[in-house]
Amino acid sequence: MKAILVAMATVLVSLSMGAQQNISFREGKLVSPQVNNDRTVTFRVNAPKAKSVKVLADWEQNGGQGVMKKDKDGIWEYTTPQLLSEMYTYRFDVDGVVSIDPVNPFTRRDVGNVFSIFYVGGGVADEYQVKDVDHGQVRTVWYHSNTANADRRMNVYLPAGYGKTDNKYPVFYLLHGSGGDENAWLELGNISRIMDNLIAEGKCEPMIVVMPNGNFGKQAAAGETSENLSYKPVMTNFLAHYKDGLFELAFPEIVNYVDATFNTIPDKAHRAIAGLSMGGMHTLMITANYPDMFNYIGLYSSGVDFTLIEKGEVPAYANFDGKLAKLAQTNPKLYWIACGSADGLMQANRQLMERMTKNGLKYTFHESSRGHLWSNWRQYSLMFIPQLFK
Amino acid sequence: MKAILVAMATVLVSLSMGAQQNISFREGKLVSPQVNNDRTVTFRVNAPKAKSVKVLADWEQNGGQGVMKKDKDGIWEYTTPQLLSEMYTYRFDVDGVVSIDPVNPFTRRDVGNVFSIFYVGGGVADEYQVKDVDHGQVRTVWYHSNTANADRRMNVYLPAGYGKTDNKYPVFYLLHGSGGDENAWLELGNISRIMDNLIAEGKCEPMIVVMPNGNFGKQAAAGETSENLSYKPVMTNFLAHYKDGLFELAFPEIVNYVDATFNTIPDKAHRAIAGLSMGGMHTLMITANYPDMFNYIGLYSSGVDFTLIEKGEVPAYANFDGKLAKLAQTNPKLYWIACGSADGLMQANRQLMERMTKNGLKYTFHESSRGHLWSNWRQYSLMFIPQLFK
Repeated sequence: MKAILVAMATVLVSLSMGAQQNISFREGKLVSPQVNNDRTVTFRVNAPKAKSVKVLADWEQNGGQGVMKKDKDGIWEYTTPQLLSEMYTYRFDVDGVVSIDPVNPFTRRDVGNVFSIFYVGGGVADEYQVKDVDHGQVRTVWYHSNTANADRRMNVYLPAGYGKTDNKYPVFYLLHGSGGDENAWLELGNISRIMDNLIAEGKCEPMIVVMPNGNFGKQAAAGETSENLSYKPVMTNFLAHYKDGLFELAFPEIVNYVDATFNTIPDKAHRAIAGLSMGGMHTLMITANYPDMFNYIGLYSSGVDFTLIEKGEVPAYANFDGKLAKLAQTNPKLYWIACGSADGLMQANRQLMERMTKNGLKYTFHESSRGHLWSNWRQYSLMFIPQLFK
Repeated sequence: MKAILVAMATVLVSLSMGAQQNISFREGKLVSPQVNNDRTVTFRVNAPKAKSVKVLADWEQNGGQGVMKKDKDGIWEYTTPQLLSEMYTYRFDVDGVVSIDPVNPFTRRDVGNVFSIFYVGGGVADEYQVKDVDHGQVRTVWYHSNTANADRRMNVYLPAGYGKTDNKYPVFYLLHGSGGDENAWLELGNISRIMDNLIAEGKCEPMIVVMPNGNFGKQAAAGETSENLSYKPVMTNFLAHYKDGLFELAFPEIVNYVDATFNTIPDKAHRAIAGLSMGGMHTLMITANYPDMFNYIGLYSSGVDFTLIEKGEVPAYANFDGKLAKLAQTNPKLYWIACGSADGLMQANRQLMERMTKNGLKYTFHESSRGHLWSNWRQYSLMFIPQLFK
């Protein structure tokens, strides 16, 4: 009985933390979404002439779908089941036209689509939002790559207080997936807020976070190159330096630029690297080719491509076992692998761990629920970053 | 005849500069918008069940409206008249639901709404896009305001090469309107591309551009404060430091932070300031209250509020004539006023110019076409910035 009361109290406390958020930029306008105190979320859209309206989203329940119902004034409404704390993306399907929520001004682009967003608080998503803590700064800078023969863009998070003293900081390199870019970890990963909050709460060391662009055939994110709005992502074109290993082999250019430009501690003990999906493959191959560079390695839902590895035609991916064995000898302090149970890449990740064991390379594995989703990559960050530079 | 041939050749050259842009992130998807070589633009949306589809945009012809027509496959299409070179924003109205173009991944938030965007090249908009030139960097930083008792956010553009030498730079302070924020000049004004391009073409001096947040009751842009997505803009709440003059009076806090943080030339001869709409009122009042601070002053479609000025209750706005007369004595090198002929604020701007003349303050006036629009503010920047620090 006592245990039940404690459990209930815990539920009540965490429910009260998920305070209601009404998204409506202008007073008097329709509110949508409305994040209710019980962690359900109500969506509304004014579409009197529509025949059918659905919400299409990335929560787990009912496959993220909700059928909206119309009232007498033509306002369609739908309330979700209780949702776990997270940042969610969604769109409305109005008679087959799929687009953002017309009254929610907050959106994110993910690959080629734009989504409306909201947060359900009272848990992990509290770390994704802005709190009244000291804020770090973000710099959008261009470094020169001799290998690519181009200036290329990266985003750099510097912790609060950076530059006010001569303090030098460890560096965490954080890589995006295919379809992403140097903005992805800021916009979809909410990484500057996560860093501000974890540092303010004493949960991680103050550190620099470097987010380069991993599409080596591109200089920067979609719309930020001289292709401008005619930009096509590299993953639609296997000739455009997609999986040719050049990004991985040229990675010391990025590390050298960062060490020359920022107040870093420029040694292996103070360098970490992680990446999601394609960025996980990049992380695997960068650390395999440069075994003395990073002490902390994270693969998030890694897009390990054993077909390319076994072919061995790409220099960066050749002699895979030998490289893993050599990395094992340098004894990195943490090799952390995470994947969702519903992720199609789980099998390749299990195969990778077998290869690591065979080559004497130790790792820690975290299996989460869900699939190939940003919710996993944000939550992996909350787990991985506190382990760095301790 | 020869004159006609020259004129025709000029038209052909500038048409060929407006090269076709097909916006379609993934191959094989519907293309929309398609910017045609003749500077017309074709929009498409797949909506077989819709009864009526319109384009709602900010070009001048037909009030920016276009009625789309459906083909046998349910694809609606509309082609605009020939458009002038600019960046345009638009949405689709599908049976009364107004939202972004579902297949165009490029959007901008303006006040509380999200719009799809595109560019028509071959003119001013070429300066708004990314070219193969050296790029400056952008820093998103927080300064402390003692007056607001808060950390507040600003964006700072630093020209290419900044920090590689001990070079010191002049500073241009650039202010947004009500409903805008510290991101507005970057996202809607395209100012980092304008600066990169003007500097690369030798059309302006290399300079630092500082974009603070002018909503003094807010710490940062919508979604970037601890209100998170429940953010309401200050202009919906006259108690939230909207037009109370505190932003203007506290402006030396920003200048002091910038001079202490960046490689600036910290004197009047190397400082410029301009603002649009509410930011024009801010610029007017900052320079009136601090007559020794800026040598170059720009008011873009300035929201001059003579009701508040005549009331004289707000300290920053009191003794207006005396302050203008004092500013006249300091003899600023350039006082540049611009307004669109269709702008409702034209009358207040004319009244302002009369007051300036009465108080001996010289100015240059530029009357453009159009109204209270970003197209004007971007084009004013192309005119104002080359005049600075010469």
